Order: sequence, then structure tokens, then C-alpha cells
Amino acid sequence: MPGNTLNTTVYPKGSLETLSQLEVQQLSEVGSGRTYRLFRQCALAILNTGVQIDNAKTILEAHADFDVRIHQQDRGVCLEMINAPGDAFVDGEMIASTREMLFSALRDIVYSDSDAGRPRTIPDNSQGITEYVFHLLRNARTLRPGVEPNMVVCWGGHSINQAEYKYSKKVGHELGLRGLDICTGCGPGVMKGPMKGATIAHAKQRITEGRYLGLSEPGIIAAEAPNPIVNELVIMPDIEKRLEAFVRVGHGIIIFPGGVGTAEEFLYLLGILLHPDNADLPFPVILTGPVGAAAYLEQIHEFVAATLGAEAQARYQVIIDDPSAVARAMNQGLQKVKEFRREQRDAFHFNWRLKIASEFQLPFDPTHANMASLQLSTSLPKHELAANLRRAFSGIVTGNVKDRGIRMIEQHGPYQIRGEQSIMEPLDALLQAFVAQQRMKLPSGMAYEPCYQVVS
Amino acid sequence: MPGNTLNTTVYPKGSLETLSQLEVQQLSEVGSGRTYRLFRQCALAILNTGVQIDNAKTILEAHADFDVRIHQQDRGVCLEMINAPGDAFVDGEMIASTREMLFSALRDIVYSDSDAGRPRTIPDNSQGITEYVFHLLRNARTLRPGVEPNMVVCWGGHSINQAEYKYSKKVGHELGLRGLDICTGCGPGVMKGPMKGATIAHAKQRITEGRYLGLSEPGIIAAEAPNPIVNELVIMPDIEKRLEAFVRVGHGIIIFPGGVGTAEEFLYLLGILLHPDNADLPFPVILTGPVGAAAYLEQIHEFVAATLGAEAQARYQVIIDDPSAVARAMNQGLQKVKEFRREQRDAFHFNWRLKIASEFQLPFDPTHANMASLQLSTSLPKHELAANLRRAFSGIVTGNVKDRGIRMIEQHGPYQIRGEQSIMEPLDALLQAFVAQQRMKLPSGMAYEPCYQVVS
Amino acid sequence: MPGNTLNTTVYPKGSLETLSQLEVQQLSEVGSGRTYRLFRQCALAILNTGVQIDNAKTILEAHADFDVRIHQQDRGVCLEMINAPGDAFVDGEMIASTREMLFSALRDIVYSDSDAGRPRTIPDNSQGITEYVFHLLRNARTLRPGVEPNMVVCWGGHSINQAEYKYSKKVGHELGLRGLDICTGCGPGVMKGPMKGATIAHAKQRITEGRYLGLSEPGIIAAEAPNPIVNELVIMPDIEKRLEAFVRVGHGIIIFPGGVGTAEEFLYLLGILLHPDNADLPFPVILTGPVGAAAYLEQIHEFVAATLGAEAQARYQVIIDDPSAVARAMNQGLQKVKEFRREQRDAFHFNWRLKIASEFQLPFDPTHANMASLQLSTSLPKHELAANLRRAFSGIVTGNVKDRGIRMIEQHGPYQIRGEQSIMEPLDALLQAFVAQQRMKLPSGMAYEPCYQVVS
Amino acid sequence: MPGNTLNTTVYPKGSLETLSQLEVQQLSEVGSGRTYRLFRQCALAILNTGVQIDNAKTILEAHADFDVRIHQQDRGVCLEMINAPGDAFVDGEMIASTREMLFSALRDIVYSDSDAGRPRTIPDNSQGITEYVFHLLRNARTLRPGVEPNMVVCWGGHSINQAEYKYSKKVGHELGLRGLDICTGCGPGVMKGPMKGATIAHAKQRITEGRYLGLSEPGIIAAEAPNPIVNELVIMPDIEKRLEAFVRVGHGIIIFPGGVGTAEEFLYLLGILLHPDNADLPFPVILTGPVGAAAYLEQIHEFVAATLGAEAQARYQVIIDDPSAVARAMNQGLQKVKEFRREQRDAFHFNWRLKIASEFQLPFDPTHANMASLQLSTSLPKHELAANLRRAFSGIVTGNVKDRGIRMIEQHGPYQIRGEQSIMEPLDALLQAFVAQQRMKLPSGMAYEPCYQVVS
Repeated sequence: MPGNTLNTTVYPKGSLETLSQLEVQQLSEVGSGRTYRLFRQCALAILNTGVQIDNAKTILEAHADFDVRIHQQDRGVCLEMINAPGDAFVDGEMIASTREMLFSALRDIVYSDSDAGRPRTIPDNSQGITEYVFHLLRNARTLRPGVEPNMVVCWGGHSINQAEYKYSKKVGHELGLRGLDICTGCGPGVMKGPMKGATIAHAKQRITEGRYLGLSEPGIIAAEAPNPIVNELVIMPDIEKRLEAFVRVGHGIIIFPGGVGTAEEFLYLLGILLHPDNADLPFPVILTGPVGAAAYLEQIHEFVAATLGAEAQARYQVIIDDPSAVARAMNQGLQKVKEFRREQRDAFHFNWRLKIASEFQLPFDPTHANMASLQLSTSLPKHELAANLRRAFSGIVTGNVKDRGIRMIEQHGPYQIRGEQSIMEPLDALLQAFVAQQRMKLPSGMAYEPCYQVVS
Repeated sequence: MPGNTLNTTVYPKGSLETLSQLEVQQLSEVGSGRTYRLFRQCALAILNTGVQIDNAKTILEAHADFDVRIHQQDRGVCLEMINAPGDAFVDGEMIASTREMLFSALRDIVYSDSDAGRPRTIPDNSQGITEYVFHLLRNARTLRPGVEPNMVVCWGGHSINQAEYKYSKKVGHELGLRGLDICTGCGPGVMKGPMKGATIAHAKQRITEGRYLGLSEPGIIAAEAPNPIVNELVIMPDIEKRLEAFVRVGHGIIIFPGGVGTAEEFLYLLGILLHPDNADLPFPVILTGPVGAAAYLEQIHEFVAATLGAEAQARYQVIIDDPSAVARAMNQGLQKVKEFRREQRDAFHFNWRLKIASEFQLPFDPTHANMASLQLSTSLPKHELAANLRRAFSGIVTGNVKDRGIRMIEQHGPYQIRGEQSIMEPLDALLQAFVAQQRMKLPSGMAYEPCYQVVS
Repeated sequence: MPGNTLNTTVYPKGSLETLSQLEVQQLSEVGSGRTYRLFRQCALAILNTGVQIDNAKTILEAHADFDVRIHQQDRGVCLEMINAPGDAFVDGEMIASTREMLFSALRDIVYSDSDAGRPRTIPDNSQGITEYVFHLLRNARTLRPGVEPNMVVCWGGHSINQAEYKYSKKVGHELGLRGLDICTGCGPGVMKGPMKGATIAHAKQRITEGRYLGLSEPGIIAAEAPNPIVNELVIMPDIEKRLEAFVRVGHGIIIFPGGVGTAEEFLYLLGILLHPDNADLPFPVILTGPVGAAAYLEQIHEFVAATLGAEAQARYQVIIDDPSAVARAMNQGLQKVKEFRREQRDAFHFNWRLKIASEFQLPFDPTHANMASLQLSTSLPKHELAANLRRAFSGIVTGNVKDRGIRMIEQHGPYQIRGEQSIMEPLDALLQAFVAQQRMKLPSGMAYEPCYQVVS
Repeated sequence: MPGNTLNTTVYPKGSLETLSQLEVQQLSEVGSGRTYRLFRQCALAILNTGVQIDNAKTILEAHADFDVRIHQQDRGVCLEMINAPGDAFVDGEMIASTREMLFSALRDIVYSDSDAGRPRTIPDNSQGITEYVFHLLRNARTLRPGVEPNMVVCWGGHSINQAEYKYSKKVGHELGLRGLDICTGCGPGVMKGPMKGATIAHAKQRITEGRYLGLSEPGIIAAEAPNPIVNELVIMPDIEKRLEAFVRVGHGIIIFPGGVGTAEEFLYLLGILLHPDNADLPFPVILTGPVGAAAYLEQIHEFVAATLGAEAQARYQVIIDDPSAVARAMNQGLQKVKEFRREQRDAFHFNWRLKIASEFQLPFDPTHANMASLQLSTSLPKHELAANLRRAFSGIVTGNVKDRGIRMIEQHGPYQIRGEQSIMEPLDALLQAFVAQQRMKLPSGMAYEPCYQVVS
């Protein structure tokens, strides 16, 4: 099943050629450590770029005999690959973008793990986390000073239908015609469509330096292997850092149809934008999709109205089936971002001023205790309610579809949630709609049934 | 029907900014002359790039009120456009590639028409024509010295079926993965597919300088408007110069399925390659198509066997439904071209050594007299037979489908051709097959019927 | 005396690699023709770059066995050098700038001589000459559209004293600090000093694209071999074309101390600027030198007053011993040039609007008859008087110092000039001063004595 | 005396634009801390680039009212300068190289002081120091992977005579003609001559990317302000790190005449190269000077023979008055370095393999106790003797010429050194010669007298 494989050695181009002896030593010595495992996993995902498998495990199992070793060479490090998937090669030579991404992964994993040759401690306070995200991105040369705001983040599902995929391409094309760059989570679906559209548009506009920035994480890259258009790959250590990277590096965000993950990201974003400190901060957000997704978008829009109110709705626009309107609206939004940052003397390349409360920077573990103590009341400040909604949403999805969640529910019974009816009902409706639209896949043979009870 | 139109002024980037006063004057004064009409026609075609209309007349009529004027500005010339098609613009600004192509057209038409400010006389002797082709290409900066042979010409139909189009994309992708550049006639269909495939492949290989060279001519550009991927456009003054440009600038040629035009080009190419002076000259030629086109390719292959023999068949390979095999075979062929030119101390950028007999450089007019005096005998040297076959082929197509040809046949009866039966029969069979496969469209209501009689 | 010599073959970088077969053939076939002799002479001068010999004959004689042959190679032409001066090489490899200049000379001589493979006829009417100068410069890629006016021509002597040389370096340094480029006649002395100063200043300003444009001619390049800083060399066919190139490509001119040649150039420039058509044309001209040259500059300034009047003096500034004031004044002048060209929609890269009367474009032959028919009267329009003054000046210098002139005077007696006393006296005084200051070298053993008589 | 001064704000180009908030805060808050004082001192030195004052104190006193403040701006940081020396500006705008160096100083001082926003601890073990040097250089983008060994370090005096200065220029010119880059301590004299020569040579060879790397330190930059040719400035935190940077980044070293500092550097270098671990490591070292410095060079050469023996002499060549021989020898040495690193798979950009014992990485304090415990015996391993010789040398110089040293000697009497006569005598002779040749300046009115006694 893995098809042809190759043994070969590849050399980097760029910053990784100058690792220090200690850095190389750390990498090459581990052999069986956590860093090594992370890197091997990322490498395998990257070598399968373009091959569409929705399951990290499958890839890892199909290539159980794959191995990668790091050596120091006269001009820096090199990677020795054993039983590498043949699709990553043309006539025995590795495709350049694959090679580039491999070394990007190595760079970021080295950076996450070591600090000038010593083990790195990732800080746990809010400012420290932000600084860390900044330093990791700077080390990856993602931050380009002096470039006017033009990085558009596209969020949405990685397994969407053909009409939605085509629509995301068209939106990307319109963005690209206006000289805008694209940032996504770097897998297939909405992660690929806008980049592909922008590539063609950039070619038409003779923009040779178009950026297709993919932000991934080790735990997810195997399931969402970077598409080959990504020309800058950054691997953030976990989902919270990755989300923070999106909102600090992106100058605007477009949300396409997707699954529960997309909805969760949207709640994350609203939660941040509703923070009083961010009230005056321009940040264009557009919810869009083709005509076939109108009902879905409408439902989300109404869910926001029902739970977070008009104030939350004011932070984004909904545009149905009009790619060039999306691009024009985004462009106008970016103008305001530019003017604001100029007035405030803020950097263009990193949104320092955006307040991200620490509850958005730290993971949420959906235990029964944590779920029970969630406050879901309309009397809360909107941004706190958004944060808790996101957590509830995340917990319910876990309880319904994830192995660990299902087992917890079997063991301890449904979550007891102290949520107001006026909040819990729309939430439940939204989840049911996701199941109906096949946007949330239940374990086979199961029907959707709320895994929680509202306790008043 | 022309949709939105715009009035605007556009400025060039590059060589056209430095026209001399006389050159600008010539251009801007004409107003109604031939040069002006040619340029207006090309400009309109370029502004309709991407819009697929198989008919120059339609475009010209739909934009009867379109006008373009040339002015001298502080930094060179500029073009004032009146009622320009709105699709060429994004938010009121012309798409960069469109602008570039407009000024390429102006550059080539200026060059064809004037010589350092004086009217240009195009030579009519063989060496003079070749020099002229060279100078026009050099003036367009198409000739890049020192670049190893990697320009692959793709010939084939501009209105092919979806399977054939996809196949041409795949072949282009495989060529691009191997760092090869693409040259086509710059319209849709096979003129676009390989370029599109190569664009994605070049992006994967991080090749930012990939070349997508389109060679067109004023009489055809309206029907085959350059696709937006073309990043170098050269407008040759007529079909013979254009064909010569293809075979002198291209290092190898791939022939995809197409109509009668493609078959004629193939005969042109064989006629040249069979010239005794070219016997030792490496020139990779590949005839290829998807599995559905196998019968068609086989038929052409057999036609060559029946008329020009095994010697002619030896000058090309037939590869069915195997894009990466096509690319590998082309790459091997290009290696031989490189070695040969190096040994012979020939330029890489222009195939000076290729002998093109003057009958291939001068137009053939299919009058009854000319058709009657064609020699189509197996006793002829193969390259002469190929030249005459090409003419016969061209004449018969004219007699069957073109206005002027049909009228000539109505008036003077069928062509009287002194062709050997063993040649005329396969030719006739080939044409019938083209009709059957809808590769040659007869005027509506007509059945295919040979417009000639063989006179023994 | 020629020291070490080498036999070697050198290859070009750039435009010359794409000569056509006919162009190469013409060049390589001549062997003994005029083109070949011109090129050999230029090549020898370039190979002696940096070696300071004030005499073309000496170089040519010292390298009588030097030969250069042109061959077509796989990647274009190459030059085979036989007995080439060793100083042009480092460890057996030709210095890059020398190689570049060799191929520039070849390019310009090819261009001057042939036109797309056919012999070129140089036009003799005013507009035709200007077009020709334009085309030659464009072919040499000297014309860069869109660059704001910043090309400062420096005129002055090639054998000046140390203080004057150092001063020219300082002025060049100040020009360079302001981002200005330098154009000179490309030999030693004032042709080198400003370029050297600007090189260091450009390095300080991190300008890596600084231009050091040398305009030479075949008859003079041996005596004034290009200094190695010149990074663009253009060889104009004769002195009149060269002077026209200076005033059309340069945006302002600085005149340093020099010999009679410099004075003649100054008269040429004034003659053009005084033409009524040029009355409103901004063209900054600065006469400058170190404190030791004050008397000399004053004398020229007074000579202008006495002959051409205050109107002529108004066309230039005199600045003594103040390099940064010179650079500031030039910069202000260039601002006006920029504004003017923008208003008039003129090109920045070529001064089309400057009127050059044909008497400045055609050579003057100082026979007794021509000298006798010169009109030197204050009643003439100033620009005509300037033109005639330049001729008289040129003739008198010929009569005093040049072989041919001295022989003509011996044979036919002194020139009979119909000049007004009020013009001839200051002219005579100026020439005597030049002799006294050793700026005009008389044949050894001769005293300065006017070679003319004023006929009233 | 400070002449004109200016108040202005300057913005960076490049990496410094992306400081993190914490980094900027640290910098801008200090105001009066050590980091601020260091930076102010460096900034002042850089603003006086090109002004030759051999005394840091003088500059600091002359510009007592100079101040520099760091602000965060929309596109990064900027520097507000108050009472900045006018010579650093042209028409009110800061010279580009000065601006670049200012921000280089800021970058290095930030790096030395803070680590991703936290205070940095500089390690004190051997490997840690080497890693630190590497990281500082990498952060300054000094390490360019994949470039073949071509960085030639030039050591020698900053106040040498004119003949020696001119000679260093000629050597630089010959190095530059061979495409070699220059690294020096970045002040005047030998720190400038080779860079100036190489600049002209690089221009001749059309090398636009020539590197002129200056390695300085905060304590010395005021006395040896970077010359304006330096196009990469790195400020190492102290002399030991700076010396390590020289020998790890340079691929070969040329030692020109200089003072006691140069001699000390030479002993440092020999001490390292004599370490048994470095026995097989190719490292070209050339001792050279003009004919007038022959006696001086001979004396040093003999001193090495007398103390460290033939083995030490074998690690370098002495070449008198032959710039091109120096360049050729260096080139050959670099070839060997290249081959060795390739064989060993070592990096080209950093000499990891060179063993530097920790006594060369840590400072030596010449107290009486430390001097008394120095072992100076021929029975020691050569590299240890070299290390101790360097210390003795350094101590004696301190005792003779430096304020602190003179006071210590006055207070405690002469140093008591346990050195062998056969070592101390040549050392004493060398120092006397330095005084005689005015290469070591004694405090005015003092005669040279050894400040030590040999204790047997």
C-alpha cells in the first residue's frame, strides 16, 4: 500500500544550514525521544503532501518502516530518509517544496524544543505565551516588517463538498487579484482552495512573491498534510499557540463552511473580539459560502444572535455567493487595519494590541467536573460567555464523537451543565444541524443524542 | 453583450518605455492605417483573454466602439483605451498580465513595421527570413543565452474534449516537475493545458522563473486569445514565421490531438526533419494523447507509414496515456539536443543549424493551378513529398471547409491532383476520420466529400 | 615593453551572446577590414585599462603582435586573444570589468556597422542623427526608463594636476552621497576622479546600482583608455555623436579645469543652450575647480562675458573650491529638470526636446577657406556666434599644435580670419593663458604665436 | 568642537524592525542602565565613523550632550537622536551605512543582553562560550551557509605609517581581485586599508556582494570607529569573544605590522594552532608588510623561533613586499581549508573543529600574583607556553603603558616572573624594539624599562 519507497539524503536551503553543534547533536542523538517522534510524524505527513488521507494513523501505519535521521554535513545538516514514500520524488529527486517543508518542520521543532542549545521552557503566563508565539514566528522568518496588511486567514472545513471547494477557490482568486496573501491551516479543502485560486490570480498579476502561509501543529499535520501550494510552513507546538498565531499574523479572517472545528474557531475569534479591550480594534471578519451553504451560514449567524447578541454580529459580515464582494469587503477592512496601526504606531506584521485573555491561551479539558462548573449565562460579559460557549461546544463534540469522550460519558453519564435554556437550546439545534448536514460525523451506527443535561 | 467597459490609460513596464520619437510618431499618427488596425485587433483579443470565443469576428463586432490610442508620456508611451472590456480590470485597474501582453503586442507590431524609425522590408530569401525571425525574437527578449535546452513546444487543438484537455494538463505537470518550460500557440485547449499543469508543478519545484511562451499572429489572436498564464507573448507577422519561430526556439515538440491544423503542423515538422541536412540533428518529437485518443493517434501514425515510411516514423515516438513517460522521453531527447549543440558549438537559444527549405518558409496558395501541379509521388525525396503532402492537405481542407475554397470548387469543379493512389487514399481516409471524430467541422448541412479528383 | 602577454579565449555575459549568424559572420570574416581594425584598437585600449599612456600610437606599437578573433560558440560569440597584455588578467583569468568592456566595444561597433545583418547607413540629417544616437544608446541598454534625472556629466582634462584631480574626486564623492550617477569620457583625470569619489560615496549610501557611464569613441579610446570604475562603456562612432550623447543622456554637466578640448566642449554646450528653442529648457551647468584653478576659471568666465555676454553667463554657475556646494547646486538643478520633463511629459532618459542645430552635429574641417569664411561678429545671434567661436577655437588649436595644422600653416601662411577685434583679442588671450598654464602643449621648441591674422 | 549637530529620528531596514514588545520595552526603559550606556557609546562612535580620533574619551567628552532614545513605531523600533554629530548626515539625512551600523549595534547589544525577552546569561564553560559566539553571529546573519571559504581576516595596527597603510591596501586589492572577502577589527589603519583595496578590486571584478566584515566590541569601538566601508558590523561583548569570532569565522589570517596588540593577537593565534588537536587542521596564516617593515617582521619571526620553535614557525609564512604573492598563497591555503572541511563534512561558515582551550576564552588579569604564577618554561607543551607568553606579554605592556599597570608597579614594585632566561630575553628585546620603532607609545617622559624581574 505505501507504494514505491526510496532511500535518499536531502540537504536544506536556508536558515537550517546554520544549526549549532549542540542543536544538531540534540536532534541527532534523540533517536527515540519525543522530539524525534514528533519530527518523524511531521516528516511522513509532508512526504505524503497531496495524498489525501483523512487519518494520521493510516499514514503512520502504512509507513511503519519509514525512518529519518539527521546528520551534520560540511554545509550544515542533512536528512537521511529510509523508505520514504515515492510520490515525493520526481525521477529520484525530492520535489523542492517537499524538501523545503521538511526543513521548516525541523526548524520549528528544534526551536520549540531548544533555546540556543539548551532545552526550552514554554512560558505559561499570558504575555510570555504571546512572546513565545512571536519568537517562533520570527525564527521562521514569517514576520516581514514594512509590508502593508495583506494576510488573509481562511478558516473552514478540510472535507467540504465540491461546490464549497470551488467557491473557496473563487474567493482566493479574487483575493489574489487584489494582491492579498493567504494563510490557512495548510491541509486540503478550505485550506487549499483559496491558495490555489490565489496562485493563478497572483500569476495573472505578475506577483511572484505571493505568500501561501500554512500554520500547522504536530498532532494534526498527518491528518491534514500540507497542500503543495503552501510556500511557508510553520509548525506551532499546540492548537492554542496555532490559533494565536492565526489571529496575530492575519490581518483579516474569512470563515467558510466547515465542521464543528470551524464553529469552534469562530467562537474563539468572537470571544477575543468581544473583549472590551478590543472594542476599537479593526479586524475584518467575513462569513461566506456558495448559495448551497446559505442555510448553514444563516443558522450560525442566528446562533450568534441568540447567544451573544447583535454586538457579536456587528464584528463580522455575512456574504452569500459573491466572491468579488468578499474580496472587496476584505480589502476595505484591511485599509482600516492599516490606518489604525499607522495611527497607533503598531507593527504591521504582528497584532500586539489584540488582547487575548489567558482562558483562550490555555487548553480546556472537558472532564465532567470542568463541564459542570462552566457558566453559561446571559448575565456574563459577552466575551466570557463566548469563551465558555466555546468550551461547552468543544466538550459536547468530544462527548459525542471522540473515543475518549464517548468512554467518559459511558462511565459517568451525561455532562451536567448549568446552562440557561436560552443558550443551550440554540447550541443543541446547531449541533443537530451539523449532523444532519453531515458536517459532524458520528461514530458509525450511532444517532445524535445530546451527551449532556441542563441543570437549572 | 460586451458587458461593462472602461476608459483608462495604461503605462508599460520594460522595453517599450524607450521608443524613439519617430517610432512613437509613426504609431500615434497612423490612426487608420494597417498597423493601427492590426494593433487594435490584437489589443481587443488580449483584453478578452480568458473569455472563450472561437471567432475573431464576434469579438470585433461586440466591441465596435473600442478604441486604443498611443501617446508619448514623460516616461515613454502610454495607451489610452476607450470602451475597453471590463473583464480585463480588477476594481478599475488593469490586470498586470493583460497590460504586459498589450505592450508586447505593441512592441512586436512596431518591430515588424519599422526599423529604427524607417519602414521595415521583410526579406523573402531563406536566410533573410531566418534572420528576421531571429531579430524579432531577440527584440522581444525571447532568446536567453546560456540556458540549457528546456523549451518544449506543445501543439494540438484549441477545441479538444475534456479528457484530452486534462491529459495535456497532466503532461504539462510532469514537464514542469522536471523544470521544463512550455511554448504554445497561446490560446485555449492544448495551448493552455500544458501551461496550467506546468504552473502548478513549477510552484511545487519553487521555480519562479518558469516560462510560458505564447507565439501568436495578428490574424489568429482574436480567435485564440492568449490564456492568462502566458508570461511571454510574441506576435509573429504571419503563420510561416510563427512556425519557424516554434521549431527554432523550441528544443522539442509534443503533439497532442487536434484538428486539421495540428495535422498540417505535424506534416510541416516531418517535412523539415526529413531534409537530408537535418538527418543527424537531434530533435525530440512525441505524439501523445489519453487512452481515448489512441485510435486517432494510431491513424496518424499509420498515415505517416503509408506515405512517408518508416524513416519518417523514426523521427518521433508515440506514447499513449502516460504523462510521466512523455516527460521522461522528452527530457532524454533534450539531453541529446544539449550534447549535440555543445559539440557543434551551436547556440542553445536558437536552432540555427536546422535546415528549413524555402518551400516551408513561403505561403502556399491552393489555386486549382497550384493544386494541379503538386507532385505526390513516392519517388520523390521524402522531405519534398512531405512538403507537397502538407500543401495538398492544406488545399483539400480549404476546398472543404473555408469560404474561399468552397467557392473556388463551386466555380472550377474539384481539384485535379496528380497524386499516386497509394498516397491519396490514406490522405482521404485521414480526412474522413477527422470529420467522423468531429475534429474537422464542415459547413452546416454539408457531408464530407472529397473536393478533388486523382488524375493519373 | 609590453610585459607579459597571454593567449586566451573569453566569453561574454549579456546581450552579445545573442548575435545572429550573419552578424557573427560579418565580424569574423572581415579580418582586415575597417571594422576589424577599429575593434582591435578598442580592444587593445581596454586591455590596457588603468595603464596610463597618453598616446594611442605607443600602445598600438608596443603590442604590434596582439590579435583578436571572433568565433561563434555554442552559447554565442567568443573572443580569441593572442598576445593580450598580461595586466588585464589575474592568475590567468581576465578581470571581469575588462571582459565586460571588450564585449561592449564589440556590441557598439557591430551596431554602428550593421543593421540586422545588413550594412548600416548613418543618416546625415539632423533628426536622423539624433535618432541614430538614440538607437545606439538604447541598444547598449544605457537608457533606463522611469529613473529620475540623476546622471551628471563631468567634463575636464585627462591630464590635470594632483590638486585638480583630488578636487574632482571630492566633488564626485559629494555627488555620490546624494545618489547621483556619473558620466564622463571614461579616461584618466577628470574622467576618473568623480567616478572614484562616487564609488566610495555610493558604498557609504549602500547604493549597489551606481552607474559610471563612459562614453568614448574609437579614435580616442587608445589615448584615453577607460578607467576600471566605468561600469557601462559605450563607444560612439565619432566626436559629434559622442557630444550629442553627453548632452542628451546627461541631466546636468559639471565642467572642471582642462585643456583646449574642455574649452571647446564648453563652447559647444553654450552654443546649444543659447539656441532660442532651448531658452526655457532647464539644464544645470557648473564650472568649478579647486582654489588653485580660480584664475583659470575666472578667465574662461570673462571670455564668455566678452564674447557671448551676460546671457551666456546666465546659463551656468561658477563655484570655486566647494564640493558640497557644487553637489547641492547640481541637485537643485536636477529637481528643475525633473519637474520640467514631468510637466512636458518628456522622457527622463533622453533629452528629446534639446534643440541641437545641425552645425553642431556635423564636423568642421579647418581649411584656410573654411576659416576665412567664418563669421565672428557680435551682430550674429549668440548661438551662431558660439558655434563659430568653437570652430575658430578648434582651427587655431589645430594650426598651433597638430601635425596637419602646422603643415597647413607652413604651406599657406596664417589663417585669414574676418573676426571682430573685440572677439579675437579675448580668444587670443585665452589661448596664451592655456599655454602659460601648460594646459596646451606646443610641439617641443616652439613658442606660442597666433597662427592667424585678423582681416577687417 | 563637536561642530554641527542635528536632532532627528532614524528607522531601521532589516531584522531589527521585528523586535518583540518585551525587547523594545527593555531597551527603551533602561534609560540609565549599563545596556543604555553601552549603546550610547557605540552609537556615538558610529556617528563619528571616518573621523579619526585615537581616543574614546575625547569623543564622549566632545559630545556630552548627545543622546539617543529608542521608540516603538508602527513598523518596528526607531531611534531618536539628540545632538547627533553633523558629519553623519548629508543634507539632513543620515548616511545609509551609518544608519545600518547603528541598528547593527542595537541588534547585537539587545542580543547580548536579552534572550527572547529575558535577561541572557553568558555561559562560562568552553563549549557554552563557543555556542554563544555562534548564536550571536548567526543572529547578526554573519553566517552564510554554502559559501566557499573566502573570508580573510586582516590583523595589524590601527595607527601605522603611510607605507604600511598603502601596502595593506594593495594586499586587499589583490585579495579582492581573487574574489576574497575581508574581515577586520573595523577601525582605521590595517582595519581599513585592505577593505578599501578590496572594494576597488571587487568593483573591477563586478562583485557586488563583497563582504567587509567588522568585528568590534563596545569598549574599543569609540577608539576605533568603524570605517565607512564596513558593510557588516558585529559587536561582540568582549575581547575574548571577539578573538574567537575572528578565528572561527575567518578562513585564513594575514598579519600586518602593528603594535603590541597585534603581537598579542599573533601569540593568541599561535597558541591555538599549536594545540595538538589542531595539528592537522589547515589554517593559512601569513605575516607580511612592505619592504620598510622587513626588520620588524624578521624580529617577530625570530622571537617565535627562539621561544616556540620551528614547529610554530611552520604554522605561518612570511612574505615581504609582494601583495600578489600574499593573495596567491592565501588562495592556496583556502583551497586546502575547503577540501578539508568537505572531507570532514564540516561547515564552511564556522570553524567548529578548531580547538580553543578555555585559557584562551577567559580574560587574564595581570596582578602581581597572577604574573608570578605564570609558567614560562621551554619544557611546557608549546601551546601552553604560547598561552602563558601571551599573558606575560599582555602583563608587561600593562605594566609599562597603562594607567592601572603603572600604578600597580609603583605600588608593589616590578613583577616577579619565574621565566626562563632563554624566553624572557627575546621577549624583552621584542618590546624594546617596539618602543624604538614607535609601535608602543610610552607615557610621555618615560623611558622603556622592564617592569619585571626574572626570578630563577
